[in-house]
Amino acid sequence: MNQEPSREFVSIEGGVTAPLGFSANGVSCGLKKGGYKDIGLLVSKVPCDLAVAFTNNTVRAAHILQNLKWVRNKISAIVVNSGNANCLTGRQGLKDAERMAELTCEHLRLPYGSVMIASTGKIGEPLNMDRVSYGIEKVCRNIKTESNYLNFSQAIMTTDTRPKNLAYEFKLGDKKVRIGITAKGAGMIKPDLNVLHATLLVFITTDVAISSALLKSALKEAIDLSFNRISVDNDTSTNDSVFLMSSGLAKNDIIQQENDDYRLFKDVLIQICIEMAKLVIKDGEGANKLLTIDVQNSLTTNDARKVARAVADSYLVKTAVFGQSANWGRIMAAIGYSGAKIDLQKLTLSIEDIVIYDKGESYLSNLSKAEAAMLQHDFTITIDLGLGNKHYNIWTCDLSYEYVKINSQYMT
Amino acid sequence: MNQEPSREFVSIEGGVTAPLGFSANGVSCGLKKGGYKDIGLLVSKVPCDLAVAFTNNTVRAAHILQNLKWVRNKISAIVVNSGNANCLTGRQGLKDAERMAELTCEHLRLPYGSVMIASTGKIGEPLNMDRVSYGIEKVCRNIKTESNYLNFSQAIMTTDTRPKNLAYEFKLGDKKVRIGITAKGAGMIKPDLNVLHATLLVFITTDVAISSALLKSALKEAIDLSFNRISVDNDTSTNDSVFLMSSGLAKNDIIQQENDDYRLFKDVLIQICIEMAKLVIKDGEGANKLLTIDVQNSLTTNDARKVARAVADSYLVKTAVFGQSANWGRIMAAIGYSGAKIDLQKLTLSIEDIVIYDKGESYLSNLSKAEAAMLQHDFTITIDLGLGNKHYNIWTCDLSYEYVKINSQYMT
Repeated sequence: MNQEPSREFVSIEGGVTAPLGFSANGVSCGLKKGGYKDIGLLVSKVPCDLAVAFTNNTVRAAHILQNLKWVRNKISAIVVNSGNANCLTGRQGLKDAERMAELTCEHLRLPYGSVMIASTGKIGEPLNMDRVSYGIEKVCRNIKTESNYLNFSQAIMTTDTRPKNLAYEFKLGDKKVRIGITAKGAGMIKPDLNVLHATLLVFITTDVAISSALLKSALKEAIDLSFNRISVDNDTSTNDSVFLMSSGLAKNDIIQQENDDYRLFKDVLIQICIEMAKLVIKDGEGANKLLTIDVQNSLTTNDARKVARAVADSYLVKTAVFGQSANWGRIMAAIGYSGAKIDLQKLTLSIEDIVIYDKGESYLSNLSKAEAAMLQHDFTITIDLGLGNKHYNIWTCDLSYEYVKINSQYMT
Repeated sequence: MNQEPSREFVSIEGGVTAPLGFSANGVSCGLKKGGYKDIGLLVSKVPCDLAVAFTNNTVRAAHILQNLKWVRNKISAIVVNSGNANCLTGRQGLKDAERMAELTCEHLRLPYGSVMIASTGKIGEPLNMDRVSYGIEKVCRNIKTESNYLNFSQAIMTTDTRPKNLAYEFKLGDKKVRIGITAKGAGMIKPDLNVLHATLLVFITTDVAISSALLKSALKEAIDLSFNRISVDNDTSTNDSVFLMSSGLAKNDIIQQENDDYRLFKDVLIQICIEMAKLVIKDGEGANKLLTIDVQNSLTTNDARKVARAVADSYLVKTAVFGQSANWGRIMAAIGYSGAKIDLQKLTLSIEDIVIYDKGESYLSNLSKAEAAMLQHDFTITIDLGLGNKHYNIWTCDLSYEYVKINSQYMT
């Protein structure tokens, strides 16, 4: 069943603190140079059900290894540091990660195992635990008097140029309910959150009352349609994590089966995740363009995914998009090496709605129109394989001088 | 049997015309702007056995589709144009490719089907056959009075910055024999010439007398150890072709079985192909570094290949190499997402001979020494997986501003 996504929601302020029960804040403790915020805390006043997704990379950061111990518990808080990934830091790194959780439990008087942790930043350097301890104490004190979701979203940033926050409100029965989200992205973005990949940290909150099992399946589906379909570079991070906490405080009839309420919740969750995924791409390292690769009418979904991935990951396509050049030969070459079943006599390639190649014929006189369309910040390359009825799409960005600059100078 | 490669050869002048029986030349016909040479011709005075490898891309240039008809014939010449790939040019493109071969046959009074063709340049635009016909006539006339391998090697260039020629001489029995090679490379280089990928055109000549079957198997093995192990970008071209012609004029005892003569021939062929593969990388678009990724002691060769490929293809590793930054976390992240079996407690990572990570311990105090090593033009990242006895290596280059500049402005 191919449902149209719901539009029955409104955007509201408040990010991850828009849903009932959540507060957040962020402080600086000196992990980042220049006094930027680098410790964030998200707290729920009631224990929450949790759904998570972590990177598939065999090399996993300490926070992921520790979180796996607690992932079935009710969770009351998440503490995050930026500036250091606490990855490839050996046994000491694992101890440090656990200590971050313990300190947060102590300061907030929460039981052991009810706090999740996350880290992002440089790989391979030991955490400065003096600074982290100071930061955790400060943010825990701080959050008792003030909630500030903007501070939290700033504290999780690395090469991001701006904080990214969204919140949607909609109705389940006669109850207003909310979903809030914040994320950090930028480099090392090729998620595969089947569970995921990439230095992508995503924090989602909701006050919807829903069973733990359905919360997990809604998150899985939402990730597959959003964060798993973006690519800044080909690299898959060691630290990617998506957290979804539900407080249940909206007092809606608890969702316990796949009914209309579930579908509406899931649709809004998908919408907010797609919107955030696009914000991550738009803020990708050196990104000037939001490029949608839309593959249609493939024999299998996997074929459509292969074609979309090959085109989205092509250095040559990405530099052509940066140059605003309708270099369709590079797109066709990527389709050709994607490994998907294709037939040049059935394939149609368009940039926006301008056909460049159609079933064996090329339309070179359309290239200048296509280049005009490529001047837009946001445009779509559509590849109709003409072989079946499956489809897949990916959002990606261009490859610019700025990407090279950022990554030749920054220690991941 | 892991034979040490032979060093029983000397470098000589003459490129593809060093082996007995070959002449070559190149002229300009106006396909490229600025009067650069764009039609090349390689001729043997006797019909040759041929071994070839063409791209695996499903989208294949017209010259490949035509050549496949003639690939079992004895071949006397190869005609090449640069400036236009004659790819995605439909039925007219196929006719034009065939016409290139026919014209060459006519001018050189050769039988139909004895001339191979090759094209490289922009994809998707019709060949200007007036210019090509003029060029073929000119080069055919020209070659009768003068042979000039440098002109040929210039006529096949696109974004290459310099012609690339090598020739080796060695002895089989009491006879001196020769192998010559020229190639164009630069962008869209991720060969997979199992048969191959990438806008890589390679022309190899030899005067060794050898059976057609052994010529083919020697080429297959040489490609697997050379051009299949280089990567400039992730893109696989529509036009890649490797041609090996043997005139047999050296009058050595014809090689008809896998004896010592065969092994020596094959070893020298491998050496010259590896040397040329490295020249292609050194002349890669925007390349400043020749980086060897050497993966050792994997459980399987495929695991070693996966690790080498993931590290070599990582945008983040390549930009770090450009920045001369010992960003070992990115290398470890790429190893982690490669899909190969790894164990962090057994893995050792070195840059040149400087150990950065060894079986769970990192050596951060060595990073400055590693960065000093990275200042060299040519250096090796060694990854010892500590799990078995298989190995694999790849040669690649950095990702620079210049790469982005070239590819945001050039129409492939």
